[in-house]
Amino acid sequence: MENRKFVLVVHGGAGNIRNEVITADKQREAREGLEEALHAGHALLVAGGSSLDAVEATVKVLENNPMFNAGKGAAFNKAGGIELDAAIMDGKTLSAGAVACVTTIKNPISAARAVMERSPHVMLIGLGADQFADEVGLEIVKPSYFWTPERWEQLKKELKQESHSRTGRRQQSGSEPAPEKHGTVGCVAVDVRGNVAAGTSTGGISSQHVGRVGDAPIIGAGTYASNDGCAVSATGHGEFFMRHVVAHEISCLVKYKGLSVGQAAAHVVQKTLKEAGGSGGVIAVDARGEFAMEFNSQGMYRGYILPDGQPHAYIFREE
Amino acid sequence: MENRKFVLVVHGGAGNIRNEVITADKQREAREGLEEALHAGHALLVAGGSSLDAVEATVKVLENNPMFNAGKGAAFNKAGGIELDAAIMDGKTLSAGAVACVTTIKNPISAARAVMERSPHVMLIGLGADQFADEVGLEIVKPSYFWTPERWEQLKKELKQESHSRTGRRQQSGSEPAPEKHGTVGCVAVDVRGNVAAGTSTGGISSQHVGRVGDAPIIGAGTYASNDGCAVSATGHGEFFMRHVVAHEISCLVKYKGLSVGQAAAHVVQKTLKEAGGSGGVIAVDARGEFAMEFNSQGMYRGYILPDGQPHAYIFREE
Repeated sequence: MENRKFVLVVHGGAGNIRNEVITADKQREAREGLEEALHAGHALLVAGGSSLDAVEATVKVLENNPMFNAGKGAAFNKAGGIELDAAIMDGKTLSAGAVACVTTIKNPISAARAVMERSPHVMLIGLGADQFADEVGLEIVKPSYFWTPERWEQLKKELKQESHSRTGRRQQSGSEPAPEKHGTVGCVAVDVRGNVAAGTSTGGISSQHVGRVGDAPIIGAGTYASNDGCAVSATGHGEFFMRHVVAHEISCLVKYKGLSVGQAAAHVVQKTLKEAGGSGGVIAVDARGEFAMEFNSQGMYRGYILPDGQPHAYIFREE
Repeated sequence: MENRKFVLVVHGGAGNIRNEVITADKQREAREGLEEALHAGHALLVAGGSSLDAVEATVKVLENNPMFNAGKGAAFNKAGGIELDAAIMDGKTLSAGAVACVTTIKNPISAARAVMERSPHVMLIGLGADQFADEVGLEIVKPSYFWTPERWEQLKKELKQESHSRTGRRQQSGSEPAPEKHGTVGCVAVDVRGNVAAGTSTGGISSQHVGRVGDAPIIGAGTYASNDGCAVSATGHGEFFMRHVVAHEISCLVKYKGLSVGQAAAHVVQKTLKEAGGSGGVIAVDARGEFAMEFNSQGMYRGYILPDGQPHAYIFREE
């Protein structure tokens, strides 16, 4: 049943991303980073590889790029530490794997895949997950590997602002985050056999509470894939995506309400999340290759690639 | 819109629970424990309290009872430690809170609620969560509080068996667990205003990998509540419940396919999970008070209470 069609879609975070606030250099760097990731996934898919392999390879490229808030380049938490989350899911078998709050794994997306394939579990967190990754032979790095001067300056600035404007209890609702504050990378793909897969990886929110876990590693919230519905990877204000179980919700709208992927993604992002005050976006693809890149924030680093091998990368709304 | 009707449903774990393998003393202890929990929830609901308050109070009673694998009585992980998970969700607002891998919080369900109401986050894990609970004034205990001789003996037995029958890689699929191995407690309720809520708490699987997180604290998997769909709390082989996003799936079948709570719970538990090899069960209730207690294992500790205040507690299939 090979249909020779395949699609791979990526995102590199959503937020208050406008032409006026991103330097030309950063824009170029982001587009190049997205294109490099798209090429990595395309190389596997064009050779008949699985969407699962393509998603992992693509997310790894984004994790290794300090431009994006995942792997190298991850945001620091309030205590000046790094806590990485990732998840991956196979839409053919509904197998899934996730890690959260890991600190020594170079590529959390590969750790998520190892949890899926080489443990009886779906989710491992903290030291137990770092230990597992070491045991199965994944590349382990010192926490200092993840340190980047940009993120460190960002944390210092935020902690300063926070001590200036302490307002007591913060809300689960909130305004659109600064472009550099949030950030997540993700990929969804469908291969020539019509199998979909999704993967997401993040360093979380800059200056977040120690131990905070967002939607990225939560199967159903930030990451989900089912051949019967669609594959989804999300980015944005994670708490809203968790409460609305966004990735699974989109897949259910496709499966049970007969909406197209584009309609389902638009409904959840532009209506459900927007009304709740949740800023961000999703990428999604179904088994027939229909895909969506939907966001309600000013911009979203995103792109897609088809069999022709031509990468398409976008940042702002009007592109 | 007070309808004077309310319902509160509890579970205390599912598994290979048959008359022949549970002593008469244990059966009595379990029924009494379930009834005590039902009374605690009823007392609040009959006075016009919210389903959220009732769910928290009910789960606390089960957490404090060493009979059940949550709070005191939690199972030990492979390293001989305790790691507790819990989540709570308000079906009216879709607010949610969760903690995972906490080790010093007497009542993890209350920590989950504090995350929901007193932090900007939905999920906190590990030391960061323990610290947060301490900061907001929840009762902190030494890890030794959770130690029970039964669970310790169980761990020793399992580690011995494991070293005898090492089979290499274990699968995400598996056979029905021993009655004492898994275990989770949970509660769903609808109050007189027609608002639903769900809460779940667990000590995980005995001898589990350090850092393993199951479905209980995952919003959408083991715990979910929406007035538009239903409130669900699950128990069983958590990995299957995560991959099938069980709690949210049941709510979506109600919301989008027009199934009743009973039909939706039966479909997911007896068809989806059973075909996948996932053993366990769910309790669910909708805003009109229709409820379900559905399981595909030999038994499930469970019960419900209505405005008349008469508790109904069950263990086996034929009751």
